[in-house]
Amino acid sequence: MAADAISRLVSGLHRLPGIGEKSARRIALEILTWPDGDVRSLADLLVEVKTRVRPCNVCFNLSELDPCSICSDPRRERSVLMVVDFVGDLLAFERARTHRGVFHVLGGRISPLEGIGPEDLHIEELVKRVESGEIREVILANGPTVEGDATAQYLKYSLNALDVQVTQIARGLPVGSDLSLADQVTLARALEGRREM
Amino acid sequence: MAADAISRLVSGLHRLPGIGEKSARRIALEILTWPDGDVRSLADLLVEVKTRVRPCNVCFNLSELDPCSICSDPRRERSVLMVVDFVGDLLAFERARTHRGVFHVLGGRISPLEGIGPEDLHIEELVKRVESGEIREVILANGPTVEGDATAQYLKYSLNALDVQVTQIARGLPVGSDLSLADQVTLARALEGRREM
Repeated sequence: MAADAISRLVSGLHRLPGIGEKSARRIALEILTWPDGDVRSLADLLVEVKTRVRPCNVCFNLSELDPCSICSDPRRERSVLMVVDFVGDLLAFERARTHRGVFHVLGGRISPLEGIGPEDLHIEELVKRVESGEIREVILANGPTVEGDATAQYLKYSLNALDVQVTQIARGLPVGSDLSLADQVTLARALEGRREM
Repeated sequence: MAADAISRLVSGLHRLPGIGEKSARRIALEILTWPDGDVRSLADLLVEVKTRVRPCNVCFNLSELDPCSICSDPRRERSVLMVVDFVGDLLAFERARTHRGVFHVLGGRISPLEGIGPEDLHIEELVKRVESGEIREVILANGPTVEGDATAQYLKYSLNALDVQVTQIARGLPVGSDLSLADQVTLARALEGRREM
């Protein structure tokens, strides 16, 4: 009874990804020590993000603008399109500032086990974008997992008939990692992908 | 520009304890996939907890009632008072259901390095509660750290002149832990606290 509001908050926080029950309790108790205004701000940010941010109708990036700031940026190279599974992957590439083209977010990976088929992803929209003719190269940057590879294979097949170059980002050893700790599949892929120096 | 609301939410979440920047990003993107109502509920819980929950005027537990439900529960043994550093410690004991008495939350530990002295904690209020005469035993359950021990020593000294038994919860090996992995201080304390079987 006494801890009702606290328990409800703990349950609410526990639903967030990566937040276990202990973390949820720790956060709830910390929240109680914050000034009222700070808690109110965080609550407002949660609601605001949902009301202001929507998927871009061109690339399915999440954005307050439509088309998103990447799609509407004249400095981006429109002829090079990178396909990613999730918005988080797009943001990772944006932080790395290595891709100067545009994006297409699929919204997931093909996964028969989870009941996710090609029709659940924004693949049809990708094909239409490529058909429109502006795109010269499609870079597949699906996640390096079985599902990501299956999705990449499906995309390769879907784009086969179109006049576009389809490439895939490299698999290999992460920079700064320890070779002796790398898994066998990564080592095999790194060897496979070796290049002349 | 596009990710403004997202970035602001990420910064807000990043302020929570134990939430790094990567976790904050992951949570923010997950929030965007939640139904509006669920996000609104979580935001409301954050604000609600701050408006409804206040420190109990008797024991400084955080509660929607004042006195809190523990202090006002007639089944709790009022003569046995456990002193803890933080509300989280009280909640841990409540989950374990081992302490049937009441509590007193200090609100921290004495720590000269962090500039926390006895006057910053609810020690005066504790002494007054004990002076009122109802309490027979004070169980010190301060954290097993240097600061916790310093706080316990200070409390022992503060309660010295009063007619009350002062005890401290045992230090030793955690149940289910691996003896070979225990640190030296814990092993020394466990040996020190050995009892006849």
